[in-house]
Amino acid sequence: MTDYKGSTLELECINTIRAVSADMVQTANSGHPGAPMGCAPIAYLLWNEIMKYSAQSPKWINRDRFVLSNGHACALQYVMLHLTGYADSKISDLKQFRQLGSTTPGHPESFVTAGIEVCTGPLGQGISNAVGIAMGESHLAATYNTPELKVFDNFTYVLCGDGCLQEGISSEASSLAGHLGLGKLIVLYDDNNITIDGDTTLSFTEDVQKRYASYNWHVQAVTDVVTGLDDLRTAIANAQACTDKPSIIAVKTVIGQGSPHKAGTSGVHGAALGEQELLDTKKGYGLPNPELKFQISDAVVKQFNTASKKGEDSLTKWQINTMDKFSASLPEKAQEIQRRFAGELPTNAFDDLPVFTIGETKDLATRKFSEGCINALVPKLPEMIGGSADLTPSNCTFPKGGVDYQKGTPHGKYIRFGVREHAMAAISNGLYAYGGFRPYCATFMTFIGYCMGSVRVSALSRFGILYVFTHDSIGLGEDGPTHQPIEQFEQIRSMPNIHLWRPADSNEMNAAYESAIRNKFTPSVLACSRQTVYGLFGSTKEKAMMGAYTAIECEKPALIIISTGEEVKFCVKAVALLTAAGIATNLVSMPCQDVFLQQSEEYQASVLPGNVPTLSVEASAVAGWHRFSHAQIGMDNRFGASGKGPQLYDHFGFTPDNISNKGKALVEFYKKNGNIPALRNVPIFEQFGKALH
Amino acid sequence: MTDYKGSTLELECINTIRAVSADMVQTANSGHPGAPMGCAPIAYLLWNEIMKYSAQSPKWINRDRFVLSNGHACALQYVMLHLTGYADSKISDLKQFRQLGSTTPGHPESFVTAGIEVCTGPLGQGISNAVGIAMGESHLAATYNTPELKVFDNFTYVLCGDGCLQEGISSEASSLAGHLGLGKLIVLYDDNNITIDGDTTLSFTEDVQKRYASYNWHVQAVTDVVTGLDDLRTAIANAQACTDKPSIIAVKTVIGQGSPHKAGTSGVHGAALGEQELLDTKKGYGLPNPELKFQISDAVVKQFNTASKKGEDSLTKWQINTMDKFSASLPEKAQEIQRRFAGELPTNAFDDLPVFTIGETKDLATRKFSEGCINALVPKLPEMIGGSADLTPSNCTFPKGGVDYQKGTPHGKYIRFGVREHAMAAISNGLYAYGGFRPYCATFMTFIGYCMGSVRVSALSRFGILYVFTHDSIGLGEDGPTHQPIEQFEQIRSMPNIHLWRPADSNEMNAAYESAIRNKFTPSVLACSRQTVYGLFGSTKEKAMMGAYTAIECEKPALIIISTGEEVKFCVKAVALLTAAGIATNLVSMPCQDVFLQQSEEYQASVLPGNVPTLSVEASAVAGWHRFSHAQIGMDNRFGASGKGPQLYDHFGFTPDNISNKGKALVEFYKKNGNIPALRNVPIFEQFGKALH
Repeated sequence: MTDYKGSTLELECINTIRAVSADMVQTANSGHPGAPMGCAPIAYLLWNEIMKYSAQSPKWINRDRFVLSNGHACALQYVMLHLTGYADSKISDLKQFRQLGSTTPGHPESFVTAGIEVCTGPLGQGISNAVGIAMGESHLAATYNTPELKVFDNFTYVLCGDGCLQEGISSEASSLAGHLGLGKLIVLYDDNNITIDGDTTLSFTEDVQKRYASYNWHVQAVTDVVTGLDDLRTAIANAQACTDKPSIIAVKTVIGQGSPHKAGTSGVHGAALGEQELLDTKKGYGLPNPELKFQISDAVVKQFNTASKKGEDSLTKWQINTMDKFSASLPEKAQEIQRRFAGELPTNAFDDLPVFTIGETKDLATRKFSEGCINALVPKLPEMIGGSADLTPSNCTFPKGGVDYQKGTPHGKYIRFGVREHAMAAISNGLYAYGGFRPYCATFMTFIGYCMGSVRVSALSRFGILYVFTHDSIGLGEDGPTHQPIEQFEQIRSMPNIHLWRPADSNEMNAAYESAIRNKFTPSVLACSRQTVYGLFGSTKEKAMMGAYTAIECEKPALIIISTGEEVKFCVKAVALLTAAGIATNLVSMPCQDVFLQQSEEYQASVLPGNVPTLSVEASAVAGWHRFSHAQIGMDNRFGASGKGPQLYDHFGFTPDNISNKGKALVEFYKKNGNIPALRNVPIFEQFGKALH
Repeated sequence: MTDYKGSTLELECINTIRAVSADMVQTANSGHPGAPMGCAPIAYLLWNEIMKYSAQSPKWINRDRFVLSNGHACALQYVMLHLTGYADSKISDLKQFRQLGSTTPGHPESFVTAGIEVCTGPLGQGISNAVGIAMGESHLAATYNTPELKVFDNFTYVLCGDGCLQEGISSEASSLAGHLGLGKLIVLYDDNNITIDGDTTLSFTEDVQKRYASYNWHVQAVTDVVTGLDDLRTAIANAQACTDKPSIIAVKTVIGQGSPHKAGTSGVHGAALGEQELLDTKKGYGLPNPELKFQISDAVVKQFNTASKKGEDSLTKWQINTMDKFSASLPEKAQEIQRRFAGELPTNAFDDLPVFTIGETKDLATRKFSEGCINALVPKLPEMIGGSADLTPSNCTFPKGGVDYQKGTPHGKYIRFGVREHAMAAISNGLYAYGGFRPYCATFMTFIGYCMGSVRVSALSRFGILYVFTHDSIGLGEDGPTHQPIEQFEQIRSMPNIHLWRPADSNEMNAAYESAIRNKFTPSVLACSRQTVYGLFGSTKEKAMMGAYTAIECEKPALIIISTGEEVKFCVKAVALLTAAGIATNLVSMPCQDVFLQQSEEYQASVLPGNVPTLSVEASAVAGWHRFSHAQIGMDNRFGASGKGPQLYDHFGFTPDNISNKGKALVEFYKKNGNIPALRNVPIFEQFGKALH
């Protein structure tokens, strides 16, 4: 490209990024070369001139954050991490792109590769995470910075494509970002007019710039990064200068830039170029030894060494001129920052969890007990920040004396997410990813269907988010089946690395919150009732933290009833009826299946011996309960209905009478049939099960 | 309100709508009075002057469609249905608002109440359904109308609130609606500045009108419907006149209009006014007998009788002047329309499903077999319309000779949804709701997390949508854990009224499609592999339609292996190894748990006798499999990884060797332990289970 306006070295760097990215995809014969080749100029500018980072200390708390929202373009990011000296992105790693066990997986994984902030790939997540990341920076800056010492002072840069902007989640997050005026969020939109199906004219003809203006963003367009970077340099400078609005820069690029036969087509999006096309492409770039792969000239290496060195210097300068001085003048604040980013807890974190005394304390809905836990924990844990998707009065998530996090009050810790569940969860992931936060967020349990995509990313990313999901059963009543969860518990229980807690009383709620906070690498869903429950005799926080325990125990149980949450109150009465009828019955409260399955086989067998007829009772899908019980009372393959909560519980058979009658029938059944099925979780079996992979 | 510019009768009608809506909520002491009171003028205008409908024939195919996207305002819609004479909304029904078994549930349910088009309540669904409804009208008009005879010629009106517009799903659907230029879609935005948390300034300060302009919508604002309706009349007329763009009219309203102490506050959103406040409100309206509830004056009754009569006349006119003439001139087309709207199938619907012959037909990925079914069914079933969320080449959903449904080609049947999964599912619901359609739509299985909210509405609404979800296991390989489903199968299996099909070969795929099409009131998810499977000896469409069947059967099985989809191919080899080792083994292929559970206990027992050691093998969460098997090989509480598909299957233990070894171990285990656990689904047990509710 003789007409390139920048230096030849600059162009060589950019073409090298393109070539090595394409080499990676070709070597793996799998992946996405088009976006890396199109976005190479943007990446060059960010890592060479714009961003402040440290390859030696990838977790430097004041680094600029970079989010690759179009995660399929990750070959580009791995190349940049390699050129700037990150340990997990050596040439040998680039050659292992997309191979099992490599540090260069097919989509970015924050827990695998140093320099990756969040797991992206599912479109729209990254840009929404970035909103949370920028919120985190603004909150911590407002909380800790002094006029002289800016401990937190970084930008958040996002690279995203058409796909990310089509996803509703990005609309939700972007609208909120504009509302909050996140001046340090800068989105670079890879405006290449191509999607998998073909040209964007097939389905995406909205005016993106006008749309972002409607969100109150600072909007710019750059029409050419092929022949030079000056326009983009200026646009990024303008974006940095605009401190009261998030910025989006629509950058016209050509997907697969330089590929003689595939540039500008969807054919280059998701498949290797092919050896010949790759060779011709690299020849077109005018790079040395085009027939060889992974070629990086000394000049290019030197250029990025300089950039990398500049990064290390900025860290050193910050350490000496800012952080050390801050630690000297405000040692306690500095220790708090250190503690928060280390993910450690204050020793007294759980001291104020409310104590519930039967007969003395008032019976309440478990959502109110949840509120009590939030009020007890938030003052102890400044890292707890959160809010609700416009259901604050129903979710009971506003802490005593809480302050809204708003444009004018970034030190506030209560987030008004609006009716934006999917973005709420993704923003919580972003806050966690920034570091120093334990976010909680809330909506009705049934609306997890609106944010399952982001909840899954929490679990995969090992982000210990607290999801406070209230109105957790048909008991919520009149709002009817659209609002009544049925399958949601099992949907969460079947997801890896996430805990579903469904407490039956205040002690169990304490256990749920303590477990959720202690499990910093596992998100937890806290299912809360809208209706009043009664203090459960025999419950303690310690017992509940085992996931399941025997709440009512007798000498030689002829029957075991397992239940969770609000339905436990019916089972308590059922046990009384059964006992009166001469059937010795244990009641097992199981607030968290996931945690119970982590206990020793001995403990599991002590609660569920497996040779005692066992009946589970939960107003939800029975799927999943066969693992623990011989028979189930549940909402098997049916939705709820609109009516008064108590009437619904009667109507669907969640009554002490029905439970005790079915319990009797189960005992009778085995008296007749003998051969009591060994339960799935008797020790040997679980052990055996564990061996199966 | 002496300054009311319209007639006093008009104002009395509007205030009566407000009063009766508030009476309903007060009587139920549950519900949402604010929106009905604020939106009463809009509703009055729509039902009294604008809309064409028939209370006597609520399903008239050319009726104008009305969607209450803010479903919590349904008291308003029930009042309108009552005033205009719909059978399910008698005064006695209004008095049963939100009571168990009533025809006036807490949120609109299309299968309960005549005159309700779709189930709304989960915000954003309704407006997105409406996009599908408007698409349906434009497609059928383009398909059947003649220059003289407009069989299909209706508008789709939507009432929605701030909440609907904050949800990402509405952004997705609205962007697509603008792209498609749906001129007969008219959205009335209840712009009342109030959300549950309080004023919209807390979280929602975007410029909605500018945003909709960016989607290429026709945008208008009406600042006053309190003192008169002329501005709204004009705006709706303009919207109707704009035929190449969807219209949105932002109508300034006052939530709880007329409530002396609560109007304009979030306090009137979701709770009854209280007797005194209700009384004072009605006094303010100047209505007779304010102390009495459900008062409708003769003048108001008469006014709506006239409107209702006008509706019946328009139906009669259409029948005589259009439909009868159309039937006379194009009897076959008329019959096709009749058949489609009756949900009947042509007798030869399934004749062309591809026959697979082992050794002759080519082994393919099941997504290719799915494509074969689409190609066989679409020509036979004009009601099949569908597309993909920008994954057409991967989902293999574009039918041979298909034509895109676009602004210029509304007769086309292939929809380019863009990267908009949530709207895609909601639009499919809307197409189904319009009538005469059996929509199918597609994305990767893992991205069901992006549209679970709408998929649930399909199941609840009894809409037989076909969800074609490909890339259904770790076998997809290099894209890694963000793209590899683990919990998704169980998430679907635990949802009421939806079938998950995971075919292992071509015959099973035929069964999946035939079952999905025949179950018109149950949505089906068709899980398809990216990788090649091998024809399964012993498989037939008929056997597969039982949900599970014995594919490899021996005299006296010592072991039963159950598997699904691609993993069946490993199990076939494992069975060979086991047989060679002297362990007689049956292989059960279970493409659909849900359908198998509907079979007779005799059939279930014939496939899974329950007293034979049974091992299930599926590369997904093991949760749910305990119902069918004694031990499970699965992805228990773990995500996948990025790597070559076959390597991943090896790595996670899905190999013939591991399966046969675990099978041996299971047999050994029971030899030692005796007491083979009776499975959950042995007849007596299932029967017993069925009794449990």
